[in-house]
Amino acid sequence: MSKTSNQMWGGRFADQPDAIMEAINASIGFDKRLAAQDIAGSRAHAAMLAATGIISDSDAEAIREGLLTVLSEIEGGSFEFSTALEDIHMNVEARLKAVIGEPAGRLHTGRSRNDQVATDFRLWVRDQIDEAEGSLTRLIHALLAQAEAGAEWVMPGFTHLQTAQPVTWGHHMMAYVEMFGRDLSRVRDARKRMNESPLGAAALAGTGFPIDRHMTAQALGFDAPMANSLDAVSARDFALEFLSVASISAMHLSRFAEELVIWSSAQFRFVTLSDRFSTGSSIMPQKKNPDAAELIRAKIGRIFGANVALMMVMKGLPLAYSKDMQEDKEQVFDAADNWLLALAAMEGMVRDMTANVANLEKAASAGFSTATDLADWLVRETGLPFREAHHVTGALVALAEKTGRDLPDLTLDEMQAVHGNITASVYDVLGVHNSVASRRSYGGTAPDRVREQIARWKEAL
Amino acid sequence: MSKTSNQMWGGRFADQPDAIMEAINASIGFDKRLAAQDIAGSRAHAAMLAATGIISDSDAEAIREGLLTVLSEIEGGSFEFSTALEDIHMNVEARLKAVIGEPAGRLHTGRSRNDQVATDFRLWVRDQIDEAEGSLTRLIHALLAQAEAGAEWVMPGFTHLQTAQPVTWGHHMMAYVEMFGRDLSRVRDARKRMNESPLGAAALAGTGFPIDRHMTAQALGFDAPMANSLDAVSARDFALEFLSVASISAMHLSRFAEELVIWSSAQFRFVTLSDRFSTGSSIMPQKKNPDAAELIRAKIGRIFGANVALMMVMKGLPLAYSKDMQEDKEQVFDAADNWLLALAAMEGMVRDMTANVANLEKAASAGFSTATDLADWLVRETGLPFREAHHVTGALVALAEKTGRDLPDLTLDEMQAVHGNITASVYDVLGVHNSVASRRSYGGTAPDRVREQIARWKEAL
Amino acid sequence: MSKTSNQMWGGRFADQPDAIMEAINASIGFDKRLAAQDIAGSRAHAAMLAATGIISDSDAEAIREGLLTVLSEIEGGSFEFSTALEDIHMNVEARLKAVIGEPAGRLHTGRSRNDQVATDFRLWVRDQIDEAEGSLTRLIHALLAQAEAGAEWVMPGFTHLQTAQPVTWGHHMMAYVEMFGRDLSRVRDARKRMNESPLGAAALAGTGFPIDRHMTAQALGFDAPMANSLDAVSARDFALEFLSVASISAMHLSRFAEELVIWSSAQFRFVTLSDRFSTGSSIMPQKKNPDAAELIRAKIGRIFGANVALMMVMKGLPLAYSKDMQEDKEQVFDAADNWLLALAAMEGMVRDMTANVANLEKAASAGFSTATDLADWLVRETGLPFREAHHVTGALVALAEKTGRDLPDLTLDEMQAVHGNITASVYDVLGVHNSVASRRSYGGTAPDRVREQIARWKEAL
Amino acid sequence: MSKTSNQMWGGRFADQPDAIMEAINASIGFDKRLAAQDIAGSRAHAAMLAATGIISDSDAEAIREGLLTVLSEIEGGSFEFSTALEDIHMNVEARLKAVIGEPAGRLHTGRSRNDQVATDFRLWVRDQIDEAEGSLTRLIHALLAQAEAGAEWVMPGFTHLQTAQPVTWGHHMMAYVEMFGRDLSRVRDARKRMNESPLGAAALAGTGFPIDRHMTAQALGFDAPMANSLDAVSARDFALEFLSVASISAMHLSRFAEELVIWSSAQFRFVTLSDRFSTGSSIMPQKKNPDAAELIRAKIGRIFGANVALMMVMKGLPLAYSKDMQEDKEQVFDAADNWLLALAAMEGMVRDMTANVANLEKAASAGFSTATDLADWLVRETGLPFREAHHVTGALVALAEKTGRDLPDLTLDEMQAVHGNITASVYDVLGVHNSVASRRSYGGTAPDRVREQIARWKEAL
Repeated sequence: MSKTSNQMWGGRFADQPDAIMEAINASIGFDKRLAAQDIAGSRAHAAMLAATGIISDSDAEAIREGLLTVLSEIEGGSFEFSTALEDIHMNVEARLKAVIGEPAGRLHTGRSRNDQVATDFRLWVRDQIDEAEGSLTRLIHALLAQAEAGAEWVMPGFTHLQTAQPVTWGHHMMAYVEMFGRDLSRVRDARKRMNESPLGAAALAGTGFPIDRHMTAQALGFDAPMANSLDAVSARDFALEFLSVASISAMHLSRFAEELVIWSSAQFRFVTLSDRFSTGSSIMPQKKNPDAAELIRAKIGRIFGANVALMMVMKGLPLAYSKDMQEDKEQVFDAADNWLLALAAMEGMVRDMTANVANLEKAASAGFSTATDLADWLVRETGLPFREAHHVTGALVALAEKTGRDLPDLTLDEMQAVHGNITASVYDVLGVHNSVASRRSYGGTAPDRVREQIARWKEAL
Repeated sequence: MSKTSNQMWGGRFADQPDAIMEAINASIGFDKRLAAQDIAGSRAHAAMLAATGIISDSDAEAIREGLLTVLSEIEGGSFEFSTALEDIHMNVEARLKAVIGEPAGRLHTGRSRNDQVATDFRLWVRDQIDEAEGSLTRLIHALLAQAEAGAEWVMPGFTHLQTAQPVTWGHHMMAYVEMFGRDLSRVRDARKRMNESPLGAAALAGTGFPIDRHMTAQALGFDAPMANSLDAVSARDFALEFLSVASISAMHLSRFAEELVIWSSAQFRFVTLSDRFSTGSSIMPQKKNPDAAELIRAKIGRIFGANVALMMVMKGLPLAYSKDMQEDKEQVFDAADNWLLALAAMEGMVRDMTANVANLEKAASAGFSTATDLADWLVRETGLPFREAHHVTGALVALAEKTGRDLPDLTLDEMQAVHGNITASVYDVLGVHNSVASRRSYGGTAPDRVREQIARWKEAL
Repeated sequence: MSKTSNQMWGGRFADQPDAIMEAINASIGFDKRLAAQDIAGSRAHAAMLAATGIISDSDAEAIREGLLTVLSEIEGGSFEFSTALEDIHMNVEARLKAVIGEPAGRLHTGRSRNDQVATDFRLWVRDQIDEAEGSLTRLIHALLAQAEAGAEWVMPGFTHLQTAQPVTWGHHMMAYVEMFGRDLSRVRDARKRMNESPLGAAALAGTGFPIDRHMTAQALGFDAPMANSLDAVSARDFALEFLSVASISAMHLSRFAEELVIWSSAQFRFVTLSDRFSTGSSIMPQKKNPDAAELIRAKIGRIFGANVALMMVMKGLPLAYSKDMQEDKEQVFDAADNWLLALAAMEGMVRDMTANVANLEKAASAGFSTATDLADWLVRETGLPFREAHHVTGALVALAEKTGRDLPDLTLDEMQAVHGNITASVYDVLGVHNSVASRRSYGGTAPDRVREQIARWKEAL
Repeated sequence: MSKTSNQMWGGRFADQPDAIMEAINASIGFDKRLAAQDIAGSRAHAAMLAATGIISDSDAEAIREGLLTVLSEIEGGSFEFSTALEDIHMNVEARLKAVIGEPAGRLHTGRSRNDQVATDFRLWVRDQIDEAEGSLTRLIHALLAQAEAGAEWVMPGFTHLQTAQPVTWGHHMMAYVEMFGRDLSRVRDARKRMNESPLGAAALAGTGFPIDRHMTAQALGFDAPMANSLDAVSARDFALEFLSVASISAMHLSRFAEELVIWSSAQFRFVTLSDRFSTGSSIMPQKKNPDAAELIRAKIGRIFGANVALMMVMKGLPLAYSKDMQEDKEQVFDAADNWLLALAAMEGMVRDMTANVANLEKAASAGFSTATDLADWLVRETGLPFREAHHVTGALVALAEKTGRDLPDLTLDEMQAVHGNITASVYDVLGVHNSVASRRSYGGTAPDRVREQIARWKEAL
């Protein structure tokens, strides 16, 4: 590390840092992503320092203008980041000094790198939350469109990946709307809770300068300044909550992605994914692979891996700031990037995919999928207790399976041999369209019910 | 597994389950903890079935009374749980049948084990959330009491476990109040989001029986029925959110516990823990070990381990119910138990612990802890830019250290040799009490500021 | 906690532990599983104390006999465990004193609870390793039997769950033999590395008594005493390595379990699982659910969750023993139990399952699965570079797909229209049996190659 | 994605990939780190293809030379990586074609991207293992040097961070030698197990070309070809084992790092870290922060986070290759980089650090650290059973503590008032140097014992 860095810490250090120390210590390689947030924070701080009379208006003006210059250099790609200056804060400050001279030295009054990085990072995470809110909303709209198109299409509802009961395509899509809807709700709660400003907490104890933390909080869109300076510089639960919310959402994505992979198999053929979200094989020319679905399924790994990493870093850290916390950013950056990417890819896939309606209905009709309807009919029409109706139905399924038929193929005589009270009206409930239409309980799979939920969501969004 | 189990699934199975299958499959060993919730859910369901005319009032009455009998048997310890009956639902139902006979068979109308277990588990988690809310509140009160007592006690504020600046004991305690306060806020958000009823979603598709899901939801204290039956039986994000919230809270506990362990060392002697939360050694009679703090510190492992476990279980599961989900309960049970235990132990330790005020102040005064105050004085009184003040201060610290003294021990001549504009008034800011009193920015460590926050929290709770 | 516990730590403590302290501190609830190992360790220690003249032969004899009495009480279920005595070591010692009187007090000479628990736990983990070695071997034998039966059965080889190339059933089974074989190898490495004795490390520093640690190590089947007493009492990497090995093995189990779930679906019908490892549904009488496979798939959660938990506990613990480490046992107990259970269930399922040979072959023949064989034929017979052969093949697949046929259904004229050098001999490579038989590279899917590997494994085990 | 990519998969795809698909799908951004391994693998493959007569010698020569050209372009920084070509394999192959023309198309005979990437990745991981072996060895040497220098320095041995018994500095250093020594042993086991070649497994089923997999295995330094082609392309346990080994090692690093942070505090002052591995503060000029130690402590987060991530990715993946597996590399890259960095930083810190010998001895003498020696003396010299000796010692400690003295300060009269058999020779065991010298059991802290272990390790390395 060069003289620059050493000077940064004052004249007390005799030796220069080791090369390996520079490699492990510098964060500029990744925290330059905080440049816009860092400069926004500094501009707000400078304005406040002037408003409270701590620095002169002309110094503040020079600082604020100089920071805009630095920002445009960074955005324009002409800024030269220096590892010796360790992090984004010192890189910006050093450049500011080169641009405006002495007033730059007054910017750091009443704050510290500890509250500065906490502020930058919160602003960055808040931006991702806003992005995620948009991405989730778009994904939900894509699902609503699929649900609307297929509110009446019948497909197998599975438990244990075994055909259980017929459901509608729309109903299945709407299950994911509920899940991503709760993700959206979690995102909003997280935003509200984390939207407080650490700026002005200084190193850890607050400051003796008469700063106005409410003013900088407001300027940066925060709801309030954080109420304890030790907490302000050392809290990272906002980042962990973000990672938790993203992880749960990634779990939902992984479930849908798994279904898309299975549904795309030659054995299921429930959906056709578009070429735009598939790939081919270098050796097997006939392959059309659901790569996007697989990659989305995998993203839970790195997103939740980041959650584990940061939780582990924070475990057992005494107050206030410890350098361990520098490991927070890369984890959150990577998780945010990959969550947003996975949400966008899923939205694209959902918009593009084609349900193979005939295959869905055929699969829904096989596998004795209306056995429950039969059992329910026995309860309703013959007054059997449910458990007994269950046994009768089981016997009829066994009979049908043994003779290679489906339930509607059994004759009335055969049925009556199993239970005498069965009448011809039983055949009304054995078709899959009748089955789904009959499940009209609130939240049920009946097309009308599904349309009600689509309407509710459209209004809510 | 016995005949009982086989009969449960109907007459279709030829072979009995393997012994190893029974061992891996049965959940009664742990899900019996859901007994009270299971019976509450069934009683609400029965009342609704009668109100909607699906079963007779007398059957409903028999069921509801019979369930109370079963509950009292379970609570009284006389109930015999059967592994062959697999789970709590079938154990309760089988016993109900033995108690009231045929009407028991009608209870299962319009529902399934899938929505039943989802309902039971949500009720159980909701109960833990309510417990956690109480525990967090009590812990915060214990911290407020410590903060109030020591609003003026001076101690070292650390970064990197190095003395940085003096802070007040009250301020340090209040940092944890903020953290546990956010945990409380997360707990409440989680409760609100998960408080919807899966009951009546049936196996996955809803039901054709004219059930009233709003009625059972209301009877069980839910805000509404869940709006999609596939989602209702297969969603576990409520459990993952609970685990995430508990994990973040456990992280906060681990930080405080680490401090207590360090503060109890012979080298620090910042606090004395009570005998009630310490242990001795079998071979080293002089030891007084902070076992409770260490165990609390460790709890993050099993709580967050449970989070990892369930996240891993849920990864990539297609809709709707898969047996994998049976692994949800033990993880949540164990995490909830240990979180509540750790919160209670921490509350007890905080209430009992004695700050060693003299040691705290002595430590706060050492290590050039008011160097920042000196730098700030230079900025305020001599108009130096902050970065230059920093260099001057560094030189003075180096001088003091080299000669084995502290900052207030330097003579004015020595100081002026480093920077000519230093005057005698500098000595006013070099004492630790002056230092903390001066840090009056919002959220700062000044005793008045700390007392403001204590008052705010007392009102808020 | 009672007087007993207080007396245990000497007369120095004024107050009794809090009830919540007892709840968080006592380990007897779980560490009683170490009883046999604890008593074995104590018996070895007593024999050594006599052999080295530290205690008398008669005392040693009384201790060793008394410990057998205690062990038989524990195994017989008549032993009363006391929470006040905290852990298994003190429970056994207290009972020993009641049985044999004063000589019991001499057993603890030259050791401590720290090395005692480390010894017990290593012995316990070693036992699980030996169990796992047996379980893995049995599972491999079950897979070898399936592989032998189906060395020639053709099935689709998948990538991305898309049909890629035909493979043999035997080859697929042998892939898992390789995986579980590496698990076995990891288990053996772990055993060898951890098989050193902590006994006699005492609290942390060794002891001044002239003990013979080599003698106790040998008596307990350890290869050597551990070479550093601080390390001996505070190392837990042996437990973490066990958890890592179990986790990787659980990952392998989860992959096979996923395949069994998919293969059992109505859409695949590749295998039929036995009734002994399936379950039915309470509401859907026709269901036959692959519950065992799903539960095995899920076990990776709790096994790797335990790995995360213990890693988190150990993070950042200073030497030597800290109470945090008490959290090691429940994690390892639970992971070991569930790993062994999952291995046994998988073995049972594999032994019982029936491949649906006709379905497998039919699926292998569909989906242009021999396109690569066609491309390879073009390279071999016409001298096309591979990449060009790939394009020709792709065109032929597109033609076949557009006209609803498979590759062998294309006429020679149609083929030659795409590439003029194709001859009638191309049809030889388009059948799935020819395809698999041709893949004779080492490790390839050709039946002969598979049989070679079966033979190699049979000899190796 | 451009036409290039589409052409790569053959002529079958109608639509171009979506932009978001390109973003989620392409791996060239990270897998370019495999360039050297990829080219080594291809050169070995080409030589074998010629040796077996599958391609001509001149084609092979052109390929092998051309690949060297490509490698030098990559190493020289002039190579232009293309995202449209997706990954390193296609980038190299496309460039090879541009350099040498038609023969490039023959390189892909008898292999696939699936075995190619598996080969590249194994070679890369093997290189890291070799690096880690060197790094661990250097770290152990640094610890041995510290141990040798301080074989006689006395310091407190802690349990629960409470002074327990005196130990030697050398003994404490040697505890870490044992830990990192086991890490080294794990690294070597992992290398041996993973050192088998996937090359020639082709897509998943092997190939019909008469390739010689043993020849390529040997050329690449593998011990053998992998024995099952399905396993060869889809196994990732070698990567998980690497991550597990690195994680356990990172756990050891975190423990030592924690000690260094605590030991550097003003309250402990056990060690002084060099300026080369410390940093200063931007606002607190007096600070000298143990940043390197903190960053090393934190590295367990991202290393074990990577382990979690990949474990999660692999959970439940059916055979053979799925695109999910593309997520393996970034995790392993990041974990390997950070583990090697942390090992190097720790080595540097250990080499540079200065033990504050006087402080260590003073701390070791306080806190009744020789209480166990007193208890042992009572057992040895008065014949008291250990448990009774413990009670007597506890009473003496309580007496000393109450009167503000240490054990050696008690008069013989006072001692005899507690237990009549105590004689003046007891004072011989109450000094810390006597204490450590007496603990001569194998693995104990006595300087001679420590020197034996140093010698053993020097010989072993």
